[in-house]
Amino acid sequence: MADLRVPVVAQLAHVELLTPKPDESLWFFTKLLGMSVVHQEGQSVYLRAYEDWFLWTLKLTEAPQAGLGHAAWRVSAPELLDEAAAAIEATGLGLGWQESEYGGGRAYRFRMPDGHRMELIWDLEYYQAPEDQRSALKNRPQRRPLDGVPVRRLDHINCFVSDVEVHEAFLRNYLGFKLRETKIGGDGKKVGSWLSVSPLVHEIAVMRDGTGQGNRLHHIAYWYGYPQHCYDVADACRDWGIKIEAGPGKHGTTQAMFLYVFEPGGNRVELWGDAGYLIFDPNWQTVVWDVSHESDLYSSTVWLGASTMPESFYTYGTPEKVTVGV
Amino acid sequence: MADLRVPVVAQLAHVELLTPKPDESLWFFTKLLGMSVVHQEGQSVYLRAYEDWFLWTLKLTEAPQAGLGHAAWRVSAPELLDEAAAAIEATGLGLGWQESEYGGGRAYRFRMPDGHRMELIWDLEYYQAPEDQRSALKNRPQRRPLDGVPVRRLDHINCFVSDVEVHEAFLRNYLGFKLRETKIGGDGKKVGSWLSVSPLVHEIAVMRDGTGQGNRLHHIAYWYGYPQHCYDVADACRDWGIKIEAGPGKHGTTQAMFLYVFEPGGNRVELWGDAGYLIFDPNWQTVVWDVSHESDLYSSTVWLGASTMPESFYTYGTPEKVTVGV
Amino acid sequence: MADLRVPVVAQLAHVELLTPKPDESLWFFTKLLGMSVVHQEGQSVYLRAYEDWFLWTLKLTEAPQAGLGHAAWRVSAPELLDEAAAAIEATGLGLGWQESEYGGGRAYRFRMPDGHRMELIWDLEYYQAPEDQRSALKNRPQRRPLDGVPVRRLDHINCFVSDVEVHEAFLRNYLGFKLRETKIGGDGKKVGSWLSVSPLVHEIAVMRDGTGQGNRLHHIAYWYGYPQHCYDVADACRDWGIKIEAGPGKHGTTQAMFLYVFEPGGNRVELWGDAGYLIFDPNWQTVVWDVSHESDLYSSTVWLGASTMPESFYTYGTPEKVTVGV
Amino acid sequence: MADLRVPVVAQLAHVELLTPKPDESLWFFTKLLGMSVVHQEGQSVYLRAYEDWFLWTLKLTEAPQAGLGHAAWRVSAPELLDEAAAAIEATGLGLGWQESEYGGGRAYRFRMPDGHRMELIWDLEYYQAPEDQRSALKNRPQRRPLDGVPVRRLDHINCFVSDVEVHEAFLRNYLGFKLRETKIGGDGKKVGSWLSVSPLVHEIAVMRDGTGQGNRLHHIAYWYGYPQHCYDVADACRDWGIKIEAGPGKHGTTQAMFLYVFEPGGNRVELWGDAGYLIFDPNWQTVVWDVSHESDLYSSTVWLGASTMPESFYTYGTPEKVTVGV
Repeated sequence: MADLRVPVVAQLAHVELLTPKPDESLWFFTKLLGMSVVHQEGQSVYLRAYEDWFLWTLKLTEAPQAGLGHAAWRVSAPELLDEAAAAIEATGLGLGWQESEYGGGRAYRFRMPDGHRMELIWDLEYYQAPEDQRSALKNRPQRRPLDGVPVRRLDHINCFVSDVEVHEAFLRNYLGFKLRETKIGGDGKKVGSWLSVSPLVHEIAVMRDGTGQGNRLHHIAYWYGYPQHCYDVADACRDWGIKIEAGPGKHGTTQAMFLYVFEPGGNRVELWGDAGYLIFDPNWQTVVWDVSHESDLYSSTVWLGASTMPESFYTYGTPEKVTVGV
Repeated sequence: MADLRVPVVAQLAHVELLTPKPDESLWFFTKLLGMSVVHQEGQSVYLRAYEDWFLWTLKLTEAPQAGLGHAAWRVSAPELLDEAAAAIEATGLGLGWQESEYGGGRAYRFRMPDGHRMELIWDLEYYQAPEDQRSALKNRPQRRPLDGVPVRRLDHINCFVSDVEVHEAFLRNYLGFKLRETKIGGDGKKVGSWLSVSPLVHEIAVMRDGTGQGNRLHHIAYWYGYPQHCYDVADACRDWGIKIEAGPGKHGTTQAMFLYVFEPGGNRVELWGDAGYLIFDPNWQTVVWDVSHESDLYSSTVWLGASTMPESFYTYGTPEKVTVGV
Repeated sequence: MADLRVPVVAQLAHVELLTPKPDESLWFFTKLLGMSVVHQEGQSVYLRAYEDWFLWTLKLTEAPQAGLGHAAWRVSAPELLDEAAAAIEATGLGLGWQESEYGGGRAYRFRMPDGHRMELIWDLEYYQAPEDQRSALKNRPQRRPLDGVPVRRLDHINCFVSDVEVHEAFLRNYLGFKLRETKIGGDGKKVGSWLSVSPLVHEIAVMRDGTGQGNRLHHIAYWYGYPQHCYDVADACRDWGIKIEAGPGKHGTTQAMFLYVFEPGGNRVELWGDAGYLIFDPNWQTVVWDVSHESDLYSSTVWLGASTMPESFYTYGTPEKVTVGV
Repeated sequence: MADLRVPVVAQLAHVELLTPKPDESLWFFTKLLGMSVVHQEGQSVYLRAYEDWFLWTLKLTEAPQAGLGHAAWRVSAPELLDEAAAAIEATGLGLGWQESEYGGGRAYRFRMPDGHRMELIWDLEYYQAPEDQRSALKNRPQRRPLDGVPVRRLDHINCFVSDVEVHEAFLRNYLGFKLRETKIGGDGKKVGSWLSVSPLVHEIAVMRDGTGQGNRLHHIAYWYGYPQHCYDVADACRDWGIKIEAGPGKHGTTQAMFLYVFEPGGNRVELWGDAGYLIFDPNWQTVVWDVSHESDLYSSTVWLGASTMPESFYTYGTPEKVTVGV
């Protein structure tokens, strides 16, 4: 009875972003989003938000082009790691076991069908705050930072894909994700799916890449949970030269209060200022939007705050052009 | 490998409150909290918040004394219902299978060790909004009400108990709850535990009844998720004669933005205006507060907004006096 | 020394809106914005927001076309009434002394150069809440309503005019307004001016009517002062069929958190959810935006929340077509 | 006709705080409240909030004891400066014309009856942001800072006095303040008065010093205008060792969302997170609270958020002990 087992994946553990402008990207994440540097190694800097429990959730790596380095999923139990790796291995999408990375144990690397690199992992080091960073609030691993409008924790990742159905199936079949919301376009094909392994509406979304390329990053998202913070960080972005693509506004899908900005390296970053809604029903029926209908398009995309998303939202991803063979 | 199975319980399905002032209680829940009446039967009225997915989450029943009628927990899968019932039956706390109630299927009734009545259930009718209540926002089962400061969904229940350890063990062993946060008093005994089966920090808390009685309701909580709404409803309570006990303020425990009021029947109701923090780690280490230490007491109870909770918070529950044999 | 005298006008006292759909308009203002009816007379209904000090601030009058009935300005002292009336009389724009209207004393009616009807008044009846509407909060004239997302007070009026400079001059010369912010278009002519007699950035704005007609109402605004309420009322509008034109978003000009909706009669209504900024400097230097420059256009119009305002914002006013001779 | 003249005073221009811990105080105002240092001279540092229009609004001066250095009031017009000074001179409370201070012109120093030092001034230098601090938002004199939870502007001052009536009369008679709200205690004497020269409910309050000393500072206040920011800065204070005395909560008087903290030097600082209510009526009737009655005491002091203010609120001021002859 598969339903009685916990899903393979339990949580999004971290993401690696590639940036051609490492100094500017670092400024953005530390001075504007209030993240802390915990480690530097090679061309990479490791960062954390103040309510992330693991040592780090963001690895910034210098690279010729912006894009996703990899995303790491923590499994629900150590026993599941080899089993899940073997199942993926059998699909031909496996890349093999990875050398331990800073703050983590053995990890199994693989590609999604389009090529997005991901890994499964169990062992992750927890952050232990030094004395001068320790909060009296014991469910907060680190004092609230005094830089920028500090994000609280990593929330989700959104991938531009060439075929939504294919990726949705992969996530459901091999990682245990459940389909929470989905959008169907005029051709009857899906244009986006939101999937999760927890009451969050998504830890991952896959959206149809308007350029047809796929294998690109649409965005990563850090979480505030308070609407005002979306406004605060948008205000700071306006004043400090960070380009806002859209928002603050409120999606219908996921009930997210969103702000989309481009970090200086070119990657889209979402800041999420909403509690959203949560799914506790083990028998959840997927919310289906038919975005070929005006009402569903408007309600799902921009419930509040603007009438439409800018064109770039449907066509811009990182890298801008996918190199064959990467 | 128990860890790989989903917990017995998936979600809090509904609560029944007893009230000696049914009309006034109904006014409070409908006009001030914006809940809708979906059914009336005998001495009971069935109510729903606008983002509750099931038909109803609150049953108000006229009774000589305020208190908890019962709380219903939905299991994670239909296959778990009989198995879980049998396990409880074996403890001697079972009350047997219940006739179907409005909007629900067969349910197994039992008592917690102190006597709080609860039930396990799987089949629950979903709310189908009539045309004039249907929202274009498809992940919202009903239009946002235009009465009062409308609550969004049922969140949790908090029970006053004679012995925290005993109830915590029952919840963990028979219902699958995990211990998220706990407070230890000066005598080394626990004074409160917060437990959940989801990333929420709690769907149920058990707190030591300062009068020693136990078997009482401390409060039920409905959720907003937006801090301003705690202020709005507090403002409305001040203007419309509903007694506020404490808040708006922010607990350290659960990071709740709270408001505690007494509905006219005498039951304490919490309105929760925070996203809180969520627990995604399958290997979560319980947050332990030692409230015999000033710092932990202050930080866990009232992180923001007031220096202490009023005395009544530790001694008032419903009913005020527990009748032997109930 | 003119600077040492208080301005002729002290405050916006009330507005009259014309509506071809009086029942639907009344529903909007009472059920969605939580305003109270205090009087009905002829084809008019008189309404108040709960923190309006005067008996009423909105008169809804049935009429074939939507539009502004009139706006009333209270003078700074009774001694100024006749003096100001005489000055306007001399311009030829006077319409003479008006019969007392419900809740008010003698009033001098006049037209702005385009034709918008206005009046000067001193005596206005204050609202005395009946026992069941009296708040314990003594600086609040009425309990917080339990309908909709209740607006707090009338804030300002915005008139579409054929020539900004002409109207700005009239408001400065005859009513004592000061120019707080102004926008200059590509032709070197002003496209909008924001004027006030108080630290508010404006009690009145005049904007160039994109259709060239002038003599139309752009919008009236009621005030919340809390950003969340703009989101709440927008959410309610989406769910209850009220068309949102723009927002929630934040203008640069005035730092307003705005929501523009069309009440069922067709008049644009702004809901303002911001503290804004206030002007205390008696020597204020007008903020000048050159909206022929992209940066000023973007920053003044939509500091946060959307990239542009919809076209209708520049061309739609009420009535849609101005009848000659009205 | 005195009513037709603008009040002598137009705005609170700046305050000087004395601190025995200048480094720690500076850390608080810059790192936690996001203020900028614009000048240092002798034992003083000059600071500004990012929406202050003048060069500075806070002067921090090292001194053996905490307390108020002085507060500066800008007159409504340059013509009023000598006239107002002469009137005060005649009362015997004058201290004479002051040498120009950094960023300001000639100022007339005087004492309030208890001894609080104040000055009248007209010429004040405006802040001109250097290129890297210039905001595209033209009604914002400086970019939003990226340190702490940045305050927007100086709001008001609250003085502990030995006799409320005496100080209220002085402020009304010599500076043009109007009495907006007042509290009367059990002995029929006033315990506090809130006065303003603008629609703000107060730029200055005088409260009865519970120790009987008078001539002390109760607090100065900086303004946010957004409720969330009160919570944010309170959260930061908890995490970074700044003692919170009370709040976040909402006063009835002025409808302030307040947070009271002690800056490291010992002075009480209020952070104000509310739009409050504004007074536009030239004929305003003072709101009178009789705080010997429970209802008025509760409603005026703590409308929302806590049941009472701590005892220190009524007895602690700076300096703790007033030295005779200072």
